[in-house]
Amino acid sequence: MAIHMSHKLSRSTIRLTNSPAIVASAAVGGKKEGEGPLASCFDILCDDTTFGEKTWEKTESRMQKDAVNKALEKAHLSTADIDFLFAGDLLNQCISSTYGLRDLEIPFLGVFGACSTMAESLALASLFVDNGIAVHAAAVTSSHFCSAERQFRLPLAYGGQRPPTSQWTATASGAAIIANDANGPFVKEICIGKITDMGITDANNMGAAMAPAAAQTLQTFFQDTGTSPADYDLILTGDLGQVGSSLLKELLNRENISILDNHNDCGLMIYDLERQDVHAGGSGCGCSASVLCGHILNEIRQKHLNEVLFIATGALMSPTSVQQGESIPGIAHLVHLSSVKWA
Amino acid sequence: MAIHMSHKLSRSTIRLTNSPAIVASAAVGGKKEGEGPLASCFDILCDDTTFGEKTWEKTESRMQKDAVNKALEKAHLSTADIDFLFAGDLLNQCISSTYGLRDLEIPFLGVFGACSTMAESLALASLFVDNGIAVHAAAVTSSHFCSAERQFRLPLAYGGQRPPTSQWTATASGAAIIANDANGPFVKEICIGKITDMGITDANNMGAAMAPAAAQTLQTFFQDTGTSPADYDLILTGDLGQVGSSLLKELLNRENISILDNHNDCGLMIYDLERQDVHAGGSGCGCSASVLCGHILNEIRQKHLNEVLFIATGALMSPTSVQQGESIPGIAHLVHLSSVKWA
Repeated sequence: MAIHMSHKLSRSTIRLTNSPAIVASAAVGGKKEGEGPLASCFDILCDDTTFGEKTWEKTESRMQKDAVNKALEKAHLSTADIDFLFAGDLLNQCISSTYGLRDLEIPFLGVFGACSTMAESLALASLFVDNGIAVHAAAVTSSHFCSAERQFRLPLAYGGQRPPTSQWTATASGAAIIANDANGPFVKEICIGKITDMGITDANNMGAAMAPAAAQTLQTFFQDTGTSPADYDLILTGDLGQVGSSLLKELLNRENISILDNHNDCGLMIYDLERQDVHAGGSGCGCSASVLCGHILNEIRQKHLNEVLFIATGALMSPTSVQQGESIPGIAHLVHLSSVKWA
Repeated sequence: MAIHMSHKLSRSTIRLTNSPAIVASAAVGGKKEGEGPLASCFDILCDDTTFGEKTWEKTESRMQKDAVNKALEKAHLSTADIDFLFAGDLLNQCISSTYGLRDLEIPFLGVFGACSTMAESLALASLFVDNGIAVHAAAVTSSHFCSAERQFRLPLAYGGQRPPTSQWTATASGAAIIANDANGPFVKEICIGKITDMGITDANNMGAAMAPAAAQTLQTFFQDTGTSPADYDLILTGDLGQVGSSLLKELLNRENISILDNHNDCGLMIYDLERQDVHAGGSGCGCSASVLCGHILNEIRQKHLNEVLFIATGALMSPTSVQQGESIPGIAHLVHLSSVKWA
């Protein structure tokens, strides 16, 4: 039997010495996602935004359930094989997760990290497996353009104009199953971020609110591991969009860290920004979740990518906090993925 | 150095072989809580519901921050000593936690379990310490009567009548610091619950919606550990109130499990139900958190209680899900606390 034990590199950076594997993953997307450049990477796509459900919230729940079931099918596992399910989303009281997953009868741990949820849930699921707390654990999250718009911004029917800095909440979900396995992708390290608030108050400029958190987490991780951007094939943020990605590069540049050569952002990958009229790019828990679970993990499986840093970023605000004049705190959690185990 | 390693008793029940200790805890309460039977157990009480803040949401954030800082002070630790902070609450996008704790600069893991949050955050923090992922970890949650009423039910000024089954959301917060230590209370076991939905649709009867989840988690735990209610000094649910507590006893009775002799409920302890006009009892993340962190942990420290099961229950609904005709899913997580370590 393998000795399970995570190794603490610093206060917030943990090496998963047993290299738990993502044994299967699945991505679910809506109409717009099926018209984007990553269309072929989704396991399930829908022709409209409803998936046949009566409300957008029920649709989003349905997408989480479909994503978990598809990942289980690909892993040749059933719900009874999963010890713990980590899930969360953007809706008030995380109802996409709780209603979507209530029938699965899997011990459930709800998480909330706004759009950082995929990294948080994946990190926790991986830690549980690495330490023998779980044999199989799952991580899932979602977002839906319509449920997010009416909750966070304006009723869709109002037709409010979107400023150029705004991002488009993806209608998507991604799920991953973690276990000890000989085949990767493997989770090698995680770095848990701190809440970072630089005083941004524009709820239409989430990228700028989250970029400082991503910069801080990356800087911490490079320092704790003694590595640099050149050690990775891809440094993938999700979802800073155009504005936040530029700001991230600038912030890291000030610390003499250059990610110009190997940075990309899930929000810039999921849509064709010009053709699909999404302004600064995609966003929402489901954006980074589906890009990771649909596209990136496959690239690692095929060894087109070998060392990847996945840094999901969240804006930890609510309409109430913004209306009360508060700024927007950001957070970013990092998961180091690899095509090879620790030696 | 101790070998950190949690031992899996079943799919969802984990024995924490190193018995991590709750080295300090703190409880913060509002005016009504300061007029209740547990008034002397709170570390900080306020004469009104504002704590001098301009909005109830800011008050709730302030209470979480005060609870964490007070617990740190009692543990003779600073924020820099805490590796990970697990927090969540009932407000949309968990803003009590994210705004309340943003200045602390502690790696942050947001959780959402509605009123089960204290058990979920305490379980995760304890697992992190037991497995050496954290040296010190903290768990905190909160609720506020006024912020909850206007978000979940009606504007306070409307003066809506409360049915007899309704519970009173506590204005309170509780925080706990976990580390390896020779002095308890110790966390010996945890059991993570599944989402359970028995079809209750009355948002004014949360106790009934959550009781089946508590019954299921308790039954699983007794089975997995080979123990029975008689092995514990106190089986403490939070917060089922009068209706839910009765239902829990009935549900367990059907399985030939009697908790009549040693059950109590945080929602029945925090207020004098008759004198304080709170109908079926207290509720809210802060109710079980403050009763645990203020009263119960002290009782264990003084060895008035030696073996305690803390089962926090959550109703995983939102106003939107209820308006869309959905029933109310419940969840219950269990933490086994003890005055003695595992031998």
